[in-house]
Amino acid sequence: MACLLHSNGAGQLPSCLSRVPVFSQLRPEEFELLHSVMRSGHYGKGENIFKEGDRSDSLFVLSRGVIKLTKLEDNGKEHIIRLLFPGDFFGQFSLLQEKPHYASADAADEADICRIYRADFLEVLRRSPDTAARFMSALSGQLEEADSWAAVLTLLEADRRLAKMLLYFRNKSVPFSNEFNLPVSKKELAGVIGATPETISRKLGQLSKGGIAVVRGRKIRILDEAKLRSLAGEA
Amino acid sequence: MACLLHSNGAGQLPSCLSRVPVFSQLRPEEFELLHSVMRSGHYGKGENIFKEGDRSDSLFVLSRGVIKLTKLEDNGKEHIIRLLFPGDFFGQFSLLQEKPHYASADAADEADICRIYRADFLEVLRRSPDTAARFMSALSGQLEEADSWAAVLTLLEADRRLAKMLLYFRNKSVPFSNEFNLPVSKKELAGVIGATPETISRKLGQLSKGGIAVVRGRKIRILDEAKLRSLAGEA
Repeated sequence: MACLLHSNGAGQLPSCLSRVPVFSQLRPEEFELLHSVMRSGHYGKGENIFKEGDRSDSLFVLSRGVIKLTKLEDNGKEHIIRLLFPGDFFGQFSLLQEKPHYASADAADEADICRIYRADFLEVLRRSPDTAARFMSALSGQLEEADSWAAVLTLLEADRRLAKMLLYFRNKSVPFSNEFNLPVSKKELAGVIGATPETISRKLGQLSKGGIAVVRGRKIRILDEAKLRSLAGEA
Repeated sequence: MACLLHSNGAGQLPSCLSRVPVFSQLRPEEFELLHSVMRSGHYGKGENIFKEGDRSDSLFVLSRGVIKLTKLEDNGKEHIIRLLFPGDFFGQFSLLQEKPHYASADAADEADICRIYRADFLEVLRRSPDTAARFMSALSGQLEEADSWAAVLTLLEADRRLAKMLLYFRNKSVPFSNEFNLPVSKKELAGVIGATPETISRKLGQLSKGGIAVVRGRKIRILDEAKLRSLAGEA
């Protein structure tokens, strides 16, 4: 079960703020104000943070790990709409619009999450217009991420989508490395890029044979980045 | 060429605000404050609003028409990443993060657009924390839109993607109607949903033959919504 702690002054919370690039520019007093209303929690692999349709009064900021945002299709199948990486926000839709969550959030791996309650959040906005502008900036950044994600999905060829997605995951790896774990299972990866699991297996096999990337279970090692980029259609 | 007008008090600007659902709840003094810093402009079909890589000091709100957000692929081809409909914002990324635009914006049809300059916008945020919260709420709404868009793109079958996208366009039609114009060309539609133009032509032909939707040029008429929904995988 998730353990949510008051962590004011516990020394573990600054990581939430420091991992969100736009917050690294906060003035000390703004930082302190935000820090004072954040609580941190740990979630185990596969643990649910909230479900589609739930109401919530919190904003979440991912500090460590990967979160899957999923929606249930009408046939009852779970469908990943986007992955969240350290520094990303989630839950703000329900918080700000006072509407049910439009997606479920689950920890794809061990995750540390910071949480701000609605009343505290609105109070921070009231007291610090600069922090409000930074939150808006961070939200815009997420919208850009969602658009980049969509740009990958509309690529016609499955091997280009796969190559782009592998480079995307590599860029999100912490610490940044050409050797990283897939944040989702291969079957989920297939769903994410709109291909069948068989196609993904075949394409991963081809990457291996071509000396471009080696895949063992969920572990990926990019051997020839230039070739992978060229496969992704990048110059 | 775009014609940008000071329109304080010109009686045409409230439409920008009134078309954005969260702003309809603004208090009269907040509404007035925002209204006083907005300028409206008209763009002809195909006209460019800004280009990928440009810097900008403005936030745009679409009042009428449809905007294409596009990125150039490495092969020089333009790629639509998302369409914007009345009430949607754009340009906030460049404004808030002071970075170049990550996509180009072009009018897909005649478009009316409201514009707020950076300094005015930051002043509004400073003076009205409630307006700041509403802007954040609107940004969250756009993130949800981007996620819904991505959820359509990852559907495996091209005819499901097409059916979903047609229902999406219908829901965005102003006035709302089962007879509407495609906001983009059929070739662009193919790019948007990650299919070849030939596949789209064939699938549109099948919709016609099946008495589900009639297509003439860009004009679409949905004849059997239940069947289209079922094709889209909706219950």
